[in-house]
Amino acid sequence: MSERDAPPGDPDPLRKLSALLSRLPGIGEKSALRLALSIVRADPEYKAVLAETIDTVRTTMRSCEICRDLSHAARCGICSDARRDRATICVVAHPQDRMAIERSGVFRGLYHVLHGVLDPLAGVGPAELQINTLLERLRDDTVTEVIVATSPNVEGDATALYISKIVSPLGVRVTRIASGLAVGGELEYADLSTLHRALEDRRPL
Amino acid sequence: MSERDAPPGDPDPLRKLSALLSRLPGIGEKSALRLALSIVRADPEYKAVLAETIDTVRTTMRSCEICRDLSHAARCGICSDARRDRATICVVAHPQDRMAIERSGVFRGLYHVLHGVLDPLAGVGPAELQINTLLERLRDDTVTEVIVATSPNVEGDATALYISKIVSPLGVRVTRIASGLAVGGELEYADLSTLHRALEDRRPL
Repeated sequence: MSERDAPPGDPDPLRKLSALLSRLPGIGEKSALRLALSIVRADPEYKAVLAETIDTVRTTMRSCEICRDLSHAARCGICSDARRDRATICVVAHPQDRMAIERSGVFRGLYHVLHGVLDPLAGVGPAELQINTLLERLRDDTVTEVIVATSPNVEGDATALYISKIVSPLGVRVTRIASGLAVGGELEYADLSTLHRALEDRRPL
Repeated sequence: MSERDAPPGDPDPLRKLSALLSRLPGIGEKSALRLALSIVRADPEYKAVLAETIDTVRTTMRSCEICRDLSHAARCGICSDARRDRATICVVAHPQDRMAIERSGVFRGLYHVLHGVLDPLAGVGPAELQINTLLERLRDDTVTEVIVATSPNVEGDATALYISKIVSPLGVRVTRIASGLAVGGELEYADLSTLHRALEDRRPL
């Protein structure tokens, strides 16, 4: 074994990278290896920027002090934007839900990110969610409406109901995003629960 | 806008990380965002090690000077292992194929990684693969057998045939890994090509 050989016991960085990636949720061993190989094969410039960006994420990303969304400043871009309507708060479960609504461009108010939904079987109660911080935001009389935009499933509906019960007594209007047939979808392919909800929530024309 | 707000035009590191990850092959925009969010949510220690490992990969990973496999030293662990049988070379298309064979623990010889297979339609000819470096390794008389372990599909078979044609005249035995029914599989569910190959390559009992 010459001086240029791999020293024994030296951890292979490819294997180490693959093991690190496989610890991310939803990434199995094979996906982790494929990802690690893609990164190894990428040009050096890409690898330098990727490592640097992860380090920036580590040092700068935190929770917005108002809406609890992920942010790289004390206040996120939306909460610090004076043009947003401060009377309406849209409550979502996860940062990616906030992103989806923001992409639609329909909503001009502020957000509040719960970071989960009520799920007693998984041990997630109100204390595990950003619900107290939501109540704090309703203390002055700026906010007049809270729109609950959790997903229309058992946990999302239960979370919406819970929020409605504790927010309504404060004199703030609580609404829920509509459920029903997807626009452009075919009625005959809609699942039973969606059809049920679409009929129940019918509105006058 | 106070001093603690996000400065305008400051690129959001989450968005930047997501954009970088979406450039990896096989990672769409949604997977990239999910991955980026997982990394953002991971503990700081994880992020520090991940960034550091990518940087180690960038500075240390190269091609083994003998077998052309990915390596973090001039010679990979297998090529520098004196206990491996130096008379047999197993030729594979990709580093992950080498890993799969190595995991099986059956093979004790050396490897050669082509980094692809012949694919004229995609512009991949012999010059694009590590074939010349394979021929160089056969110059002295150490190697007596080359096992071609490319996948049993059109490109893999064509590559095996090509290697056989240029290596056989050097007096080195060229063999091909067997194709046929997967061990533990059901004959009735085997596809036609596999069944065809399994019958053609039948051997005496």
